[in-house]
Amino acid sequence: MQTQVAGTSIVELARKVRAASIQAAQLSSGAKQNLLTRLAEALEQNREALQQANQGDVNRAEENGLSGPMLERLRLKDTVLDQMALSLREVAQLPDPVGEINRMARRPNGMMVGRMRIPLGVIGIIYESRPNVTTDAAGLCLKAGNACLLRGGSEAHETNMALGNLIAEVLEAQHLPREMVTVVPLTDRAVLTEMLKLEDEIDLIIPRGGEGLIRFVAEHSRIPVIKHYQGICHTFVDASADSEMATSVIVNGKAQRPSVCNATETLLIHHQALQTCWVSMAEGLLKAGVELRCCDRSWGLLREKGLETAQVKRAEPGDYGQEFLDYILAVQVVDSFEEAVRHIQRYGSNHTEAIVTQDHQQAMRFLREVNSSVVLVNASTRFADGHQLGLGAEIGISTTKLHSYGPMGIEELTTQKFVVLGEGQIRQ
Amino acid sequence: MQTQVAGTSIVELARKVRAASIQAAQLSSGAKQNLLTRLAEALEQNREALQQANQGDVNRAEENGLSGPMLERLRLKDTVLDQMALSLREVAQLPDPVGEINRMARRPNGMMVGRMRIPLGVIGIIYESRPNVTTDAAGLCLKAGNACLLRGGSEAHETNMALGNLIAEVLEAQHLPREMVTVVPLTDRAVLTEMLKLEDEIDLIIPRGGEGLIRFVAEHSRIPVIKHYQGICHTFVDASADSEMATSVIVNGKAQRPSVCNATETLLIHHQALQTCWVSMAEGLLKAGVELRCCDRSWGLLREKGLETAQVKRAEPGDYGQEFLDYILAVQVVDSFEEAVRHIQRYGSNHTEAIVTQDHQQAMRFLREVNSSVVLVNASTRFADGHQLGLGAEIGISTTKLHSYGPMGIEELTTQKFVVLGEGQIRQ
Repeated sequence: MQTQVAGTSIVELARKVRAASIQAAQLSSGAKQNLLTRLAEALEQNREALQQANQGDVNRAEENGLSGPMLERLRLKDTVLDQMALSLREVAQLPDPVGEINRMARRPNGMMVGRMRIPLGVIGIIYESRPNVTTDAAGLCLKAGNACLLRGGSEAHETNMALGNLIAEVLEAQHLPREMVTVVPLTDRAVLTEMLKLEDEIDLIIPRGGEGLIRFVAEHSRIPVIKHYQGICHTFVDASADSEMATSVIVNGKAQRPSVCNATETLLIHHQALQTCWVSMAEGLLKAGVELRCCDRSWGLLREKGLETAQVKRAEPGDYGQEFLDYILAVQVVDSFEEAVRHIQRYGSNHTEAIVTQDHQQAMRFLREVNSSVVLVNASTRFADGHQLGLGAEIGISTTKLHSYGPMGIEELTTQKFVVLGEGQIRQ
Repeated sequence: MQTQVAGTSIVELARKVRAASIQAAQLSSGAKQNLLTRLAEALEQNREALQQANQGDVNRAEENGLSGPMLERLRLKDTVLDQMALSLREVAQLPDPVGEINRMARRPNGMMVGRMRIPLGVIGIIYESRPNVTTDAAGLCLKAGNACLLRGGSEAHETNMALGNLIAEVLEAQHLPREMVTVVPLTDRAVLTEMLKLEDEIDLIIPRGGEGLIRFVAEHSRIPVIKHYQGICHTFVDASADSEMATSVIVNGKAQRPSVCNATETLLIHHQALQTCWVSMAEGLLKAGVELRCCDRSWGLLREKGLETAQVKRAEPGDYGQEFLDYILAVQVVDSFEEAVRHIQRYGSNHTEAIVTQDHQQAMRFLREVNSSVVLVNASTRFADGHQLGLGAEIGISTTKLHSYGPMGIEELTTQKFVVLGEGQIRQ
C-alpha cells in the first residue's frame, strides 16, 4: 500500500522529479546563474510571508516544549534569511561543473577518449529542523544540474512548504517544471521509508542531522547514501612541534567552535613534546575554558607545574573516541609516531586529523599513513569545511569513501561519463 | 546467530581482512609490482594442481547436468590459466594510482590544499562460476592498495579454494598477512546475506554475474554496491551519416561479439538516413547472420528492395529495450534527433550509446544530451571496455552514477582524501 501525499503517492511525486531532472541536466550555465539569482531575490521580497509561516512552526514547537538551541535553529530570523539569499548568490557565481571534459587523450587506434562531467540526476536530501537547508540544498543541486526531493523535519514543515512554493513559483516564472525542486509535503516516517526504496527515481540520498536520523536512513535505504556519523578529530603534536604553533592550532581546533564536527576531540602528544609543548598548550586550553581529560603522564606534568585546577581531570577509557561537541578535550601521550597513527585508526571516525610538526619526513608520513577524509599538517582541524578548502559551498561531509570523501561541493553532486570521438573505428 | 565458516564466522573473517587492509594501503609501488609478478609465476608453476582441483568442480558440474557454455566457463583450460597470469603481469606494470596528489593549490590564507588518491579499504567481490575472476579481482584490488574478500560460485568452489590458497602462500612468502586476499570458504546464501551487512568491515561490493545475482546483492546489501544490470546499447544513425561508416560501425557493434553487454541491441535511424544508409546496413547485418526486427518504415524499405528474407521480421513492442545478447537487432526509424534521444532515455540502461554522423553540431549535442556511461561519436559500442578506453584493466562496468560510471579500472578502486599543508594557520 502506498502512502498518499496530497492526493498523490511519494513514488508518483518522485517520478515527476525524475522527469524534471532531464531538463535540469540540460540547463545552460547562464540559465542556472539567473535562476539562483532570482531565487535569492524571491527570498528577500517574500521575507514577511516566510517569517509568518515560520512563526506557525515556532509556536507549535513552543507548545510542544522544544528546547532552546533547537528552537533557535528553527527560527527564520532576518540574519538567517540574509545568509540564505547570500549563499544562493555565491553558488550562482561558482563555475558550472557540468560539461567540463578532462583527460581527453588519443588511443592507439586514433579515437579520442575523455571524461565529461554530468549531473547525478535526482538528489534526495533528508534533514531536520534547519529551514536554511531547503534553499542551500536546492541551490547546490540546481547548480550541478540535478533535480531534488527535499524531505525536511516535521518541526519546520510550514516554513519548508512556504519555501518550496516560493522556489516552485520562481521555476515556473523561468518556464521550468516546478517539480525540479520538490519539498515532500508529508513528514511521517512511513513516507520516508518508502522514499528510501525508490532506487529507480532517486540517484543519491544525503541525510543531514543527528546520528539517529542518519543511521535510520543508512539502514533503510536501497539508494546510495553519502553521510558521516561523527567527527572524532585528532590533533597529534609530534616530537619536533613548535610550542607556540602547537598551542595556537590546538586551542583553535578545540575551542573556536566546539559544537561542530571538525572540532578536535582528542589531543595526542609525542612523549618528547610533553616537556616542550604541553604546559603552553594546557595553559591556552584552560584559558579558553576547556576541560582536560588527561592520561597519567599529561596529568602528572600539570600537577608538577601546579596547573591542577578543577578543569583538569583524569581520563576514563571512554573519553578516547568520544565526540564531546563541547569544551572538553581528551589528552593522550604516545611513545611514538606509530602509536599515534594506531590510536587514530582505532578511535577515529575517518573525518579529520592534524599533525603539528617541524619534521618534513614525519609530515609526509602522516599524509601518507592517515587515511581520514581531511588530513592537515600544521593547520587547525577547523579547516575541514568546503568553504575553507576552496569548494565554494558545501552540501555535507562524507566519511564513506565511496563517490566523495570529505567536504562535498557542487562537483561532488556530479559524475563523469566517458566520451569518445571517433572516425568510424571498429573493434578488431 | 552467525554462520560458522571453517570454525570461524564471516564477520571474524571480514575483520581479519579489514586488519590486513591497513598494510595493503601502505604497500610501496615496487612491492605491489613484485607481488603481482610472483602471483603470475605461482599460477604457472602450479598449473597441474590447480587443474586437478578444477577437474573436481567440472566432474560435479557434469554430474549435476550443467549445460555447455556454463561448463566451458568453469573449465580452467591452459589458455585460461595463461590469460590469468598475463593479466596479473599487465596489471603489475600499470602506474600505481595510490599516493598521487592533484589540484594542489594555495588558499588566500597561504595553506596548500590538494587531493591525494588512497585505497578504498576492503572490496567484496561476489561472482559466479568463472574462476579467472578470483585472480583478476585479487590483482586489481591489491594494485589499488585494497584487501579483498572474494565470494565465488559454488560450482567453482574447489578451484577457487585452490587459487585462494596459492595466493595466500605468495602473500606469506612476501611476509604479508594471508588474509589480504581471502576466498570465502563457504558458498551458501546465508553467508552471502550476512556478508552484505558487514558495513563496518567492507567498503564496497562489486557483484559480477547474471542479473538475478546482481539484484539479490543490491537488495540485501547495506554496503555500497557498484553494478550494472543490463547493457541495452543503442546506435543512432543520424541524417548526415556516411553509409559505409554506418554499416561498418553497426555490424561491428552488433555482430562482433553479440553475447556481451556492450553489443548494440537497437539501431535508431534518422528518417533522412533511411534512403542513404539503411539498405547497405541491412545487407551487412544480414550477411553477418543478424536477425532484424524492424519497425514499419525500415521493414517497408527492405521489402521494396527485395531484401525481405527469413531473417527480416516485424518488431514487437517488447523488442525495444530488450537485451538480446544474440544475433538479433531491433530497428526503429525516428523523425528527429530529439526523438532518438527520447527513445534512448526511455529504453536505454545508461550503459553505452553511439551516434554515426558527419554533422559536428549533432555530434556535440549527442555527447551533451545522452548521459549514458559511455557515449561515442562515430565508433562502435564494442569499445565500452576498460582495456579499449585506456584504463589498462577492468574490474567491471558501472551504470550506477555514484563513485564510478562506466568501465572501472584500478583508479576506480581508490578514492581521494583532502591534504592540507599549513604553517600554523588557524581559523578566524
